Amino acid sequence: MRIINEKDIPNIPFEECPKGCLDPVWRYSGNPLIKRNPAGSLSRVFNSALVPYKGAFIGVFRAEDRTGVPHLYVGRSADGLSIEFEDRPIVFVDEEGNAAESHYQYDPRLVEIEGAYYVTWCDDFFGPALAIAKTTDFRKFVKYPHPFLPYNRNGVLFPRKIGGEYVMLSRPSDSGHTAFGDIFLSKSPDLIHWGENEHVMERGWEWWNLTKIGAGSNPIETDEGWLLLFHGVTNTCNGFVYSFSGALLDRERPGKVLFRCRDYLLTPEKDYETSGFVPNVCFPTSALVDARTGRMAIYYGSADTYTSLCFSYVDRLVGFIKERSR
Amino acid sequence: MRIINEKDIPNIPFEECPKGCLDPVWRYSGNPLIKRNPAGSLSRVFNSALVPYKGAFIGVFRAEDRTGVPHLYVGRSADGLSIEFEDRPIVFVDEEGNAAESHYQYDPRLVEIEGAYYVTWCDDFFGPALAIAKTTDFRKFVKYPHPFLPYNRNGVLFPRKIGGEYVMLSRPSDSGHTAFGDIFLSKSPDLIHWGENEHVMERGWEWWNLTKIGAGSNPIETDEGWLLLFHGVTNTCNGFVYSFSGALLDRERPGKVLFRCRDYLLTPEKDYETSGFVPNVCFPTSALVDARTGRMAIYYGSADTYTSLCFSYVDRLVGFIKERSR
Amino acid sequence: MRIINEKDIPNIPFEECPKGCLDPVWRYSGNPLIKRNPAGSLSRVFNSALVPYKGAFIGVFRAEDRTGVPHLYVGRSADGLSIEFEDRPIVFVDEEGNAAESHYQYDPRLVEIEGAYYVTWCDDFFGPALAIAKTTDFRKFVKYPHPFLPYNRNGVLFPRKIGGEYVMLSRPSDSGHTAFGDIFLSKSPDLIHWGENEHVMERGWEWWNLTKIGAGSNPIETDEGWLLLFHGVTNTCNGFVYSFSGALLDRERPGKVLFRCRDYLLTPEKDYETSGFVPNVCFPTSALVDARTGRMAIYYGSADTYTSLCFSYVDRLVGFIKERSR
Amino acid sequence: MRIINEKDIPNIPFEECPKGCLDPVWRYSGNPLIKRNPAGSLSRVFNSALVPYKGAFIGVFRAEDRTGVPHLYVGRSADGLSIEFEDRPIVFVDEEGNAAESHYQYDPRLVEIEGAYYVTWCDDFFGPALAIAKTTDFRKFVKYPHPFLPYNRNGVLFPRKIGGEYVMLSRPSDSGHTAFGDIFLSKSPDLIHWGENEHVMERGWEWWNLTKIGAGSNPIETDEGWLLLFHGVTNTCNGFVYSFSGALLDRERPGKVLFRCRDYLLTPEKDYETSGFVPNVCFPTSALVDARTGRMAIYYGSADTYTSLCFSYVDRLVGFIKERSR
Amino acid sequence: MRIINEKDIPNIPFEECPKGCLDPVWRYSGNPLIKRNPAGSLSRVFNSALVPYKGAFIGVFRAEDRTGVPHLYVGRSADGLSIEFEDRPIVFVDEEGNAAESHYQYDPRLVEIEGAYYVTWCDDFFGPALAIAKTTDFRKFVKYPHPFLPYNRNGVLFPRKIGGEYVMLSRPSDSGHTAFGDIFLSKSPDLIHWGENEHVMERGWEWWNLTKIGAGSNPIETDEGWLLLFHGVTNTCNGFVYSFSGALLDRERPGKVLFRCRDYLLTPEKDYETSGFVPNVCFPTSALVDARTGRMAIYYGSADTYTSLCFSYVDRLVGFIKERSR
Amino acid sequence: MRIINEKDIPNIPFEECPKGCLDPVWRYSGNPLIKRNPAGSLSRVFNSALVPYKGAFIGVFRAEDRTGVPHLYVGRSADGLSIEFEDRPIVFVDEEGNAAESHYQYDPRLVEIEGAYYVTWCDDFFGPALAIAKTTDFRKFVKYPHPFLPYNRNGVLFPRKIGGEYVMLSRPSDSGHTAFGDIFLSKSPDLIHWGENEHVMERGWEWWNLTKIGAGSNPIETDEGWLLLFHGVTNTCNGFVYSFSGALLDRERPGKVLFRCRDYLLTPEKDYETSGFVPNVCFPTSALVDARTGRMAIYYGSADTYTSLCFSYVDRLVGFIKERSR
Repeated sequence: MRIINEKDIPNIPFEECPKGCLDPVWRYSGNPLIKRNPAGSLSRVFNSALVPYKGAFIGVFRAEDRTGVPHLYVGRSADGLSIEFEDRPIVFVDEEGNAAESHYQYDPRLVEIEGAYYVTWCDDFFGPALAIAKTTDFRKFVKYPHPFLPYNRNGVLFPRKIGGEYVMLSRPSDSGHTAFGDIFLSKSPDLIHWGENEHVMERGWEWWNLTKIGAGSNPIETDEGWLLLFHGVTNTCNGFVYSFSGALLDRERPGKVLFRCRDYLLTPEKDYETSGFVPNVCFPTSALVDARTGRMAIYYGSADTYTSLCFSYVDRLVGFIKERSR
Repeated sequence: MRIINEKDIPNIPFEECPKGCLDPVWRYSGNPLIKRNPAGSLSRVFNSALVPYKGAFIGVFRAEDRTGVPHLYVGRSADGLSIEFEDRPIVFVDEEGNAAESHYQYDPRLVEIEGAYYVTWCDDFFGPALAIAKTTDFRKFVKYPHPFLPYNRNGVLFPRKIGGEYVMLSRPSDSGHTAFGDIFLSKSPDLIHWGENEHVMERGWEWWNLTKIGAGSNPIETDEGWLLLFHGVTNTCNGFVYSFSGALLDRERPGKVLFRCRDYLLTPEKDYETSGFVPNVCFPTSALVDARTGRMAIYYGSADTYTSLCFSYVDRLVGFIKERSR
Repeated sequence: MRIINEKDIPNIPFEECPKGCLDPVWRYSGNPLIKRNPAGSLSRVFNSALVPYKGAFIGVFRAEDRTGVPHLYVGRSADGLSIEFEDRPIVFVDEEGNAAESHYQYDPRLVEIEGAYYVTWCDDFFGPALAIAKTTDFRKFVKYPHPFLPYNRNGVLFPRKIGGEYVMLSRPSDSGHTAFGDIFLSKSPDLIHWGENEHVMERGWEWWNLTKIGAGSNPIETDEGWLLLFHGVTNTCNGFVYSFSGALLDRERPGKVLFRCRDYLLTPEKDYETSGFVPNVCFPTSALVDARTGRMAIYYGSADTYTSLCFSYVDRLVGFIKERSR
Repeated sequence: MRIINEKDIPNIPFEECPKGCLDPVWRYSGNPLIKRNPAGSLSRVFNSALVPYKGAFIGVFRAEDRTGVPHLYVGRSADGLSIEFEDRPIVFVDEEGNAAESHYQYDPRLVEIEGAYYVTWCDDFFGPALAIAKTTDFRKFVKYPHPFLPYNRNGVLFPRKIGGEYVMLSRPSDSGHTAFGDIFLSKSPDLIHWGENEHVMERGWEWWNLTKIGAGSNPIETDEGWLLLFHGVTNTCNGFVYSFSGALLDRERPGKVLFRCRDYLLTPEKDYETSGFVPNVCFPTSALVDARTGRMAIYYGSADTYTSLCFSYVDRLVGFIKERSR
Repeated sequence: MRIINEKDIPNIPFEECPKGCLDPVWRYSGNPLIKRNPAGSLSRVFNSALVPYKGAFIGVFRAEDRTGVPHLYVGRSADGLSIEFEDRPIVFVDEEGNAAESHYQYDPRLVEIEGAYYVTWCDDFFGPALAIAKTTDFRKFVKYPHPFLPYNRNGVLFPRKIGGEYVMLSRPSDSGHTAFGDIFLSKSPDLIHWGENEHVMERGWEWWNLTKIGAGSNPIETDEGWLLLFHGVTNTCNGFVYSFSGALLDRERPGKVLFRCRDYLLTPEKDYETSGFVPNVCFPTSALVDARTGRMAIYYGSADTYTSLCFSYVDRLVGFIKERSR
Repeated sequence: MRIINEKDIPNIPFEECPKGCLDPVWRYSGNPLIKRNPAGSLSRVFNSALVPYKGAFIGVFRAEDRTGVPHLYVGRSADGLSIEFEDRPIVFVDEEGNAAESHYQYDPRLVEIEGAYYVTWCDDFFGPALAIAKTTDFRKFVKYPHPFLPYNRNGVLFPRKIGGEYVMLSRPSDSGHTAFGDIFLSKSPDLIHWGENEHVMERGWEWWNLTKIGAGSNPIETDEGWLLLFHGVTNTCNGFVYSFSGALLDRERPGKVLFRCRDYLLTPEKDYETSGFVPNVCFPTSALVDARTGRMAIYYGSADTYTSLCFSYVDRLVGFIKERSR
């Protein structure tokens, strides 16, 4: 199995699998990575995304202050474990440099395409809707028009053009605590006009993802296909439970699912996952891959309260997904 | 006031306003135009659209047979009043001529752009979503990819490109009997990729459209702006009530509302509007305009059971909307 | 049986009971009294109240224009049947004569106490709440502070002080299309401070009033007790059905129910009651009584669309309520 | 096609199909058969069942008085059209002759098995549940223990034992205005113990029965199978719509569906079906068949307000069901 | 007080009550007995049942693998504390030995009657329904037809025939996260046909069981009556809370409740009860009794995640129930 | 800043702010103050109120026994930390000394006005409603008539008359787990008749109090205004989260909000706040202030399970509120 187009990240945060553990992913011993009230006015930081950047790491973080309203902050880290946040949220601007305001911003993903960095997140466009912005220096973030009509969440860009077009996964839904939702794929020549919409994956018959699913972290290209992590939700009498699993999508026709794991990879089991602002949430939003070793560091939000980390190897994960595919 | 880009339709169905009536629109004395079980296997025909065609009229009709599942049928009429339906529903095909199947199709709109005819309607794309097809002869209908992600209804195309792009209004919502919804506008260079999404109109403070709104019939271009009919819904303890009203949109920037009438133009008051499969529905989907006289024939579905007709004059309607604008 | 404190109204609108009819109340042959679009900008007039006034009749009417928002209008009538409405809604003022604005006003009741007239209705006090105003000339209406906290509807004042205090019935509920509710009674020395709250009647085991009840028209004093009409609501799979019945309350302790009729007096059966803006509603809001003959003219809203009228005799009605009491 | 085990009913109520009508069933010109307030204290009589009896007809009727609570009444008719009701509801007794009370009783079916008559209906067993009673003279009705656990409705007995056992169709559901439900079949050696439960028919993909279905009138045995009428419900934004259709079940293994009509046979279209206490209900509960001519008289409740009648011929109906079978 | 028909179980798992503790039941110090991911592919094991078997213990366990779908597994234990699970779920067969498949199986109870073992559980019969199977060797499990129509859960068999018939408790409900439900009792001569249904216990006025109740573990026969543990549910703004308590049922007429404890015996208080897949659940499903000493070991699921254990003495428990009876 | 009308409480429970902590309030190191099953039959004690009394402290406590029904108990404490509860709940009486019964009592507040002590709480007046009682010795509690109509909760009296009248804050709502609600203010000359109702604060745009708010502890008078703690609720997909914050109200016109803090002061973060009977609840109900030092001890219920304590200084809190005011 070959990893494609990923970089060497010698300083990727990593721990080997505990002895005897056969699990496809394993948790960081220092979890949760980002605890409550980690800095200044920030009370909860979770569902956030990092990329390697100039030998270190940089990321876009969902952070809430004591008003409870989420905004996006830039954070920097030498080791991918300890994060230094900027004092103020990102101010997105339009092409002319004017502030492109919205009441809230949440659940960012971050991907590098052809040397530039693209953030996708959810903001308020007369209802929750996806937003995209481009940055090259993590200082100026230029926001595009909203790519899709509301109501939509969990927008994930592929890290390269496919067939000459940008490709995005998303999860159309409704204006509230949506109780349904599948993953779709759309294409664009210019990041402004989107179409050729395809249905990629529907919620599953497995109970852990009966209610809804959504794309998680940035797709990883391998010669077996795109490795995609996705969350799945089940509805108990005491609320939703968010687990996550993985799939392999066709490299050139990414709307085609080659393998989809019927088992979850991780489900809320630790205190920092089962208790918090929203109990029972594991929500992956970012994956680092060291091309040389295949090591993976998967960042996931836990309980809408903490940022957590788990690890795997790309080939181990791809193997597991294929073996447990339906 | 000048009507732009509309044709002369000397045989437009029309009745003058009853004496003493000051209303902005008035009902056809022969309503409902299409009654229950109008032909062969068809049980209910409503929410349908007509255009002038070769000196007569042709249309795409939402018709349900006794399974209750809606499909689209071509219908022809010499006078716009008495309709002859084809025996079988339209079979949409893709570019290669293969059948482009969907489980149901409903609420079509129909518009001529540069000599071709475009149908927009709602079909099943893993949830209710908008569809577009093109025809030149009303025999072959070539379907485009779904323009937007689900869940979306009430797609209305403008009858000409604006700023070099196709323009569509739509109402994103959810997968069921949606209890919320505003009108948005999107643009496309090719009818395949859509973007530059704008919010056009939100539900109103007036009680008749407190719950949701949606674009109705094909926009009529005038030198005062695009005349758009839209439905508005209020939620009583015994269900939704659908009325309709009108707005004027900027000619070159149609996302800008110049005038929006705070009064409804028509609300369910007649037996064929207040009783039927879905009581209390007046749902406009098509408007014919005779360029010479300014006469308007507005087709609207009533009670999700009948096709009804009401009349006005373009200048009278525009005047009313401006006068009662908020 | 003796009627107390009511006036002679020789011109009370009335029709004798149809031959052979044994019903406790019977409908006016000219129903609905007020049809759709009865005047100028008014589209629906219903749930309204009249009193005898200077040999004729005057009333406060819930009327909606084409925005669908309800306001209150003064209407005058020589015969209690044909009403002349004022052009503009009542503008309520505070003690200083400043406008006491609210977004909407609905379901007024009207009663004379010691020579002054008191309107009670529902308006918007951060949610639906009861309002009271006093007038002596039906030109100036001085509004009191809101007597109760929201959320409350169906406030009915007794036509005299009892035990030296003003007495009001009301139906506390919630902020929407309430699915529960009982009738309570409150007392006030000054129409400003209210207390000594009592529970008067709960929803019934009879199916017609299983869901909620509310006081209807002005209580009529008799030596058998206060004759109170009240509406009751049942919840079918296709919405609420509003019927009404009657009860006798103790004269000096009106929170005590002496008799409560287990049968409805009137239930939606006529087209103007079963079809309209809100199907299946009979909602009594006002009763005229001619002291000499005992004739009653009961005004009730039908289908939230029309004003209708039915008749009875006080003793016949009291007799029926006692006979069918539980 | 041969009708089995039915009697000759020369005085069956009947009208021939209107000229040119191709429908599988056609309405009685005198509909509704039983109007509002048909007798004494009865306000609404519907969802009721008749059998031929001593050269005339007798039936068990759901009737509500002005409390709105439904009880069952015996009614007699010489012609199947004009009904004479008993003054008081049926008092069911247990084997010892003691009253077997319940708060309400509704939606009876009636069938003759081996010379005795069996009523099945819904009453209150800590929630809606099915009840059975036996009578031979329509004076004494002996009630059995509740055959099934709640919550269940629409119990229909087959008119003969099959494989030596009694057979009943029913529709398990929940305690309220159920939004789901399929038809099941159960067997009993003694009308007391029930088991061998089978699933017979699920709600349909056709929109008229998307939400739930339930067995309607007594099954008619033919050499093609048991002819079963069943109602189907769809859920609009303004409430449920009840239509009905038919199926053929295997004669000896009645849990096996041979043919199921994908079209409805009758859907609410007339005023007495679309307006009333519960708008848009056609609910079949009883079918008379004249063995000699094959004439059918189908009784159905309309709008939970009226009893209506429609006609067909057994072979025409069976033919239609087979032709439109899925 | 005398225990009837139970065996001596000298190796029953047991701990004496902590000093000073006056509680009717006390928790095992090693709780939770079965933790997350206890074996191979099993992620959560809970709501399960054990019996003494050949000097050791055997049980049927609800276990979920990483698909989240529950199946039933056989488990064996020497001490009732440490369990060895079989690798694969039980494959139920019909009388002919053919696989009797269902999509899921959950919440088993297990009881010995006349030398054979009977499992009752919930599986998918077009909605959740009860299932029964018989085994003598815990290798072959023969499944009966579904005893009741759906929708039903919490089926508990009595460990002997009463009055010559098998007796089962169950909780009819609906197809989802039911918000209502009482305990009923049914009888059968053959485990196939069920009838003589009785209502046993309704949800309580005590707040801990306001919403619904359900039979818990196998009834224990004593000369004071059948000791039944049952769970009760209350509905907070943040979900359901499951506690449990006990009742005494008449020995020969077990539908008659002699005593019902108004206090809960155990309510979620420990971390492994208040946090997990479904927070705040204590759900008893099995009780072992040592006839000689009266020691009880009660197995209960906690948080739909763990299997836990608590202890009591039969006489202490019966005494508590009687003392706190309502 | 000056504290007005508060006493010196030298023995006020207090801890200084942990070093480096900049928070406006800080938790007691011994939290939770009152744990599960603190005494005799009491299982959970929370949402309770204390006052200084004869050199020590006395309070009224919401306590639930094992039936789960809440009642009010008197508790005494020398240090405000360790509480001794009475064995039996308070028996409220009317003026004649007769028991004034209600099914449940919860969420008491306690305030001293002119030498007498007033308890306000929620009990059952045909739905949840506010109650008031007066005591001078904490033995006899005389209950007034219910001050407001149901449905209302969170009644908080001001500790002195303002403008010659008693003043109460409350939160009208509905009969269940209310999903909306604002704070209102009412005035009374006699604690019996209430009026002059004003709207004080609506739910906030900040996400932590989007859903509803309610007055918390007794208002503290300062020369900057009345310091009011209030709880705010947000609605996640897994239930409500209760945080609290503070506001300053005008001293003589307390319906006027001078400052309202946009940040929460405390949100559930500790195990005893995020886990329990109702996870994620911090609910302030009482504040002690030492006039001399300005020390504050704020009692708050956590997780509807525990009583907890946090501290601040009046001036620090007022400063924070003003600084973060919107």
